Amino acid sequence: MYVESTGIQVIETIEELQKTLNRNERKDTTVGFVPTMGFLHEGHLSLVSHAKEQNDIVVMSIFVNPAQFGPGEDFESYPRDREKDLRLASEAGVDIVFIPSVEEMYPADGGIRILPGRQADELCGASRPGHFDGVLKVVLKLFNIVDPDRSYFGMKDAQQLAIIETFVRDFNLRTAIVRVPIVREEDGLAKSSRNVNLTAIERSEAPAIYQALQSGVEMFADGANPEAVERQVAEGIIANSSGKIDYVKILAYPELGPVTDDTEEIILACAVKFSSTRLIDNIIMSTKDGTPCSE
Amino acid sequence: MYVESTGIQVIETIEELQKTLNRNERKDTTVGFVPTMGFLHEGHLSLVSHAKEQNDIVVMSIFVNPAQFGPGEDFESYPRDREKDLRLASEAGVDIVFIPSVEEMYPADGGIRILPGRQADELCGASRPGHFDGVLKVVLKLFNIVDPDRSYFGMKDAQQLAIIETFVRDFNLRTAIVRVPIVREEDGLAKSSRNVNLTAIERSEAPAIYQALQSGVEMFADGANPEAVERQVAEGIIANSSGKIDYVKILAYPELGPVTDDTEEIILACAVKFSSTRLIDNIIMSTKDGTPCSE
Repeated sequence: MYVESTGIQVIETIEELQKTLNRNERKDTTVGFVPTMGFLHEGHLSLVSHAKEQNDIVVMSIFVNPAQFGPGEDFESYPRDREKDLRLASEAGVDIVFIPSVEEMYPADGGIRILPGRQADELCGASRPGHFDGVLKVVLKLFNIVDPDRSYFGMKDAQQLAIIETFVRDFNLRTAIVRVPIVREEDGLAKSSRNVNLTAIERSEAPAIYQALQSGVEMFADGANPEAVERQVAEGIIANSSGKIDYVKILAYPELGPVTDDTEEIILACAVKFSSTRLIDNIIMSTKDGTPCSE
Repeated sequence: MYVESTGIQVIETIEELQKTLNRNERKDTTVGFVPTMGFLHEGHLSLVSHAKEQNDIVVMSIFVNPAQFGPGEDFESYPRDREKDLRLASEAGVDIVFIPSVEEMYPADGGIRILPGRQADELCGASRPGHFDGVLKVVLKLFNIVDPDRSYFGMKDAQQLAIIETFVRDFNLRTAIVRVPIVREEDGLAKSSRNVNLTAIERSEAPAIYQALQSGVEMFADGANPEAVERQVAEGIIANSSGKIDYVKILAYPELGPVTDDTEEIILACAVKFSSTRLIDNIIMSTKDGTPCSE
């Protein structure tokens, strides 16, 4: 461990983090946990600010998790900037940053896998086979290492959030999960570490994604059927950007199954591929009053 | 919750157990956990006695876990005796018995599964597809519910123990795992809740299993190759009982792969089917000095 001049504690090993956060030491002190893959932006800082409000100590992990990247995906090119991340985390009031190596996190592999259920059949789960296995693996490890009272997840990764909530519920994991709304650029593009991999032209086109989603939820609220909405959103994105549609889909949330008469919240979600990066975005909406829930 | 006249606390809900064992309340008090499927025998009580030696509080769970029984297996006929179990647990000094219903443990199923790795390819994993998925599921739930400092497992279920040790290691589960030696009847039969389902004749034949395993490890220690030992053990069991061989196998322990020059411990394990029940037994042995480790 070392303490940055800013006072933030930087911890690189599991053993040291567990010693630092030992419940016999920390007593009633509550821990809010913000897991990240680094290259921090305002979305992450919003997670931190929610965590600070609700807990005594805020722990952030920064770990680009190889287990959730498939072959040919962007594990190598995923953006990283340790020094800037530590500065931003420190300024945001994070108390402890856990920044382990891949070897520290995965020293051995006995082959045990955690497979998501039906919730992973659609959306990113369909496009990225094995992705959510890797997410569940690292999330269970991090929860066990940090032992947080509350863990903060952004609603941009809405499918991830839904699967993690199910994991926590069905396996009695010892942390509360807090949903944090999407943070957007002024032009509406959802904040993402991957946005830096857009070309200038792609960056100027990318707000078309959110605009199309907004008009899509309006159509849905006005009574259009899901397929018509999905088609219209896809057409809006294609017409206004060079992005290729991976998926545009309306599903019940957080079940991620078909919308039925009993569905209380829906998600309109999409993934769009640009030349060297793939962006996701979504709007979650109450079916009762048409209010967006994820913003 | 209610307190038996013997002073043992009986808890049936997750919420109440978690409240009782809350770390903010229990402070430095250590908890030893003995997960069981009930119908307690001296094997279980040996787990309790190890747990009592090493911890301030002993928590036993009694739960016949449907998730680890396959179709056509003995979930329905698995023996149960709640009153006797509570009496035995109490006499053994258990502080808290957690005895949830199936509905309490599995109120919802989002379909997330935990699959074992190569360690489940052999032995009971091969004969009982899905068995260890169900074991890992209930073990993760129980560990999260009880939050034990140490958890006690009998070496009779040696494959289960090996897989759980791997799970704890690879996923940073917050409990130590303690291996407890097999407890045997005077005639050598390994204690098992299922022994009551043997007919009188089968019961009289069943010690042949351990006798055959003992002569097998002697052969192995004398330099016989694994296949020859396996054949001899199977023949010994068949010759001296009406049991049918499910498997007899020598593997490296706890990897449960082939024995190599680097193997430090081996397991000689078998499963034998009688008319209405299937028994397992094993001997774990150091390859260096031929000392049995599981007894």
